[in-house]
Amino acid sequence: MSEKIDKIDVRDVIQVDSELIENISTLIENQAKESLMNIFANLHPADIAEIINNLNIEKASFAFELLDNETAGEVLIELDENLREKLLKRIDAETISDIVEELDTDDATDIVSELPEELADAVLEKLDREESEDVKKLLEYPEDSAGGIMNSDFVYVYEDNTIKGAIKEIRKHAEEFEHIYHIYVLNHSDQLVGIVYLKSLLTNPLRQKITSVMEEDLIYVNPNTDQEEVAALMDKYDLVAIPVVDSNKVMLGRITIDDVVDVINEEASEDIQKIVGLSEEQESSDSVFRISRIRLPWLIIGLVLEVLNALILSNYEASLTQILVATFFMPIVMAVGGSSGTQSAIVMVRSLGSKEIWLKEVAKKLGKELFVSLINGIVLSSILFSLVFLFFSQETVTISFTLILCLSLQIIILFSTMMGAAIPIVLKKMGLDPAIATGPFVTSSNDIIGLLIYLSLVTWFML
Amino acid sequence: MSEKIDKIDVRDVIQVDSELIENISTLIENQAKESLMNIFANLHPADIAEIINNLNIEKASFAFELLDNETAGEVLIELDENLREKLLKRIDAETISDIVEELDTDDATDIVSELPEELADAVLEKLDREESEDVKKLLEYPEDSAGGIMNSDFVYVYEDNTIKGAIKEIRKHAEEFEHIYHIYVLNHSDQLVGIVYLKSLLTNPLRQKITSVMEEDLIYVNPNTDQEEVAALMDKYDLVAIPVVDSNKVMLGRITIDDVVDVINEEASEDIQKIVGLSEEQESSDSVFRISRIRLPWLIIGLVLEVLNALILSNYEASLTQILVATFFMPIVMAVGGSSGTQSAIVMVRSLGSKEIWLKEVAKKLGKELFVSLINGIVLSSILFSLVFLFFSQETVTISFTLILCLSLQIIILFSTMMGAAIPIVLKKMGLDPAIATGPFVTSSNDIIGLLIYLSLVTWFML
Repeated sequence: MSEKIDKIDVRDVIQVDSELIENISTLIENQAKESLMNIFANLHPADIAEIINNLNIEKASFAFELLDNETAGEVLIELDENLREKLLKRIDAETISDIVEELDTDDATDIVSELPEELADAVLEKLDREESEDVKKLLEYPEDSAGGIMNSDFVYVYEDNTIKGAIKEIRKHAEEFEHIYHIYVLNHSDQLVGIVYLKSLLTNPLRQKITSVMEEDLIYVNPNTDQEEVAALMDKYDLVAIPVVDSNKVMLGRITIDDVVDVINEEASEDIQKIVGLSEEQESSDSVFRISRIRLPWLIIGLVLEVLNALILSNYEASLTQILVATFFMPIVMAVGGSSGTQSAIVMVRSLGSKEIWLKEVAKKLGKELFVSLINGIVLSSILFSLVFLFFSQETVTISFTLILCLSLQIIILFSTMMGAAIPIVLKKMGLDPAIATGPFVTSSNDIIGLLIYLSLVTWFML
Repeated sequence: MSEKIDKIDVRDVIQVDSELIENISTLIENQAKESLMNIFANLHPADIAEIINNLNIEKASFAFELLDNETAGEVLIELDENLREKLLKRIDAETISDIVEELDTDDATDIVSELPEELADAVLEKLDREESEDVKKLLEYPEDSAGGIMNSDFVYVYEDNTIKGAIKEIRKHAEEFEHIYHIYVLNHSDQLVGIVYLKSLLTNPLRQKITSVMEEDLIYVNPNTDQEEVAALMDKYDLVAIPVVDSNKVMLGRITIDDVVDVINEEASEDIQKIVGLSEEQESSDSVFRISRIRLPWLIIGLVLEVLNALILSNYEASLTQILVATFFMPIVMAVGGSSGTQSAIVMVRSLGSKEIWLKEVAKKLGKELFVSLINGIVLSSILFSLVFLFFSQETVTISFTLILCLSLQIIILFSTMMGAAIPIVLKKMGLDPAIATGPFVTSSNDIIGLLIYLSLVTWFML
């Protein structure tokens, strides 16, 4: 008894922290293979991956080679993409194929798809024939489709089988699958007809026909279904696995919740990336140059647009010389207009999600945004009026100028809120990613239009 | 056979779209209870919830009352929070408690916690004693802790039991739990000692001791663990359920992956909310006034800070009159500086996550940001120089001014990138939410400091 509790404590105590990484790093320097293997044997592959992610490539490679093939596979899929790429370059095709063979088909496909073409071919050739064919089939699906994330191995029985037969089938595959949550029932054309939860196998007589305990209200996807939609379905219906079938309902594979959790994390990160203008996801192992490359494209586009803005402003030179005070308030109209637009854009992007949009709903949503922008405009203009009145002398900023400023703010908020809400819908209708609307391009364009509105009003009324 | 395929087709065909909602709305107007009940019987609770979310409160309430208690419970937890609140106001305590009784303890707790105190007490009183006590216990945990999202019902056996005994236990609770993925093994002090996967129950002899098939490498959390950390653990270790134990390892409950998927979605949304300055999550059923209230706080803070900015600018009035051209480029330094800062801030926020930070890592990360900002600064300044040289006459914008502009841009990018990366770390160390660093407060402050740097340099060199 006490031994068991001890074991739990040990599991709890070994946590990845800087000290453990430091120690492992020293052990690697001393080439202390035995000690390292002992430590790794007590760690979860996800923890080993976290440690290796924090080592330089030399040390990472030394540590990785100490792992048995099964652990190596599980560690490999958890590593940062860059490090994985570098590690795999140092390993021969034979070893890679031995490692890949231990993986589920979906993970195996992910690894193979990242290899240079020649190496990938060599690895595929060395895999056992069935696995190699499965992977080749999966490689054909787009990375972000149901086909791209599904596992083509699953436990199934034919519909004329019994519960006993189903249990036999599970026993046959017990080694192959780490976890089995349900088994699929197919007819003799391999079409999916039902799903059986393991619970039902345990709570019903062995001789009962499998069809009598299966769920027939099936929720499934096609291999071309977007991974985001798969995630939305599994979230909505609280599923731990979802079957993937072709257009004839022939069973092709299944997607499990752990892969979908990754998709959800990925999609959320992508939305965030777009808002702040990162061209790709940045990983902690990325080099300085890669990070620059990820961040620069949108910064450059923003810069170019703002130069355009400067050109426009230079055309107002005559006006600005006379009403220099107008320049003091340029940051306000830009900042508040920009924020209002981004707020309505992101709310729209998130509410659109992967759903279809209905015309009636669009009208309703836009109507709401119109009211919201009116209210916010009135509140913000009033605050602005009071603040300017309080903090600026009326010689510097006249009442009539302040009124025009507030009117501009009201119009700009109205305009940018409506654009923020409308652009994602238009993009979606055009089959483009609505999240672009939150990016620097639309934001900078809004800046320009906002300033134009402001300066036109000022020039018109004041000169 | 063909009948089964038909049934699948039907399941596939009934999808929630505007037409179905329209039809249901008409049926409600005609009080066609029978037809409605027929339609609802063929729909998943999550779909019924989606439909009801799109109805006004009168119709929603009519539809909701047609549901049996079990379906009503499942629909209730999927409804938008606002609508749920309004619906529950129209139902008496007796009915609410009948509905709540059908729910898992975690969901029951969520519902009860949203009720006005008096009604909550009345509902708790009418629940059966065990359920009522479970809910009361769960109500004591913070909403965003493991205790706040755990279910206190789970299937367990004592460690001296056999596989046969475990199967018996599952049969006993078969009705109570929709899905069972594993059962927990406790010692006689109710301490968790292992987890058994249903697969192991099916693939081993019935007389074998349960301890011989249980996993002892346990990963568990305490009721006070932050829900974000729970999600990170379940994601990292690919778990479908995680046990919650107290400090003596006494089993308290379990958290399932479907609840964690909600947490992940929630946390990603929260990060996004903070970037764009929404004070709360906005739901599609929110009223115009609520939406305004959600969006205004950060807009107001931004506005006030930018007024401060205008005040600072007005102090440079003398300089600006002489070098009006400086104002044309204010939007550039603001926009590019702001974007650089937000990029490094969000990358830092996402990489910090729920992990502990190690000093050595901090130094490494900041060092990287320094290099990145130098490279990006050089690239962007060069582009800016070329663009200004190409598009502006040298009478308007002199070479020496352009050089100062580019120098300012370089310094501002350096400054805002470093601030963007450093502020999240400081906030985290102070126990605050690092994501604030991406919010309008920090962004506006960066605007101000950026403009100050720019105008100081211009004044210093040009006048």
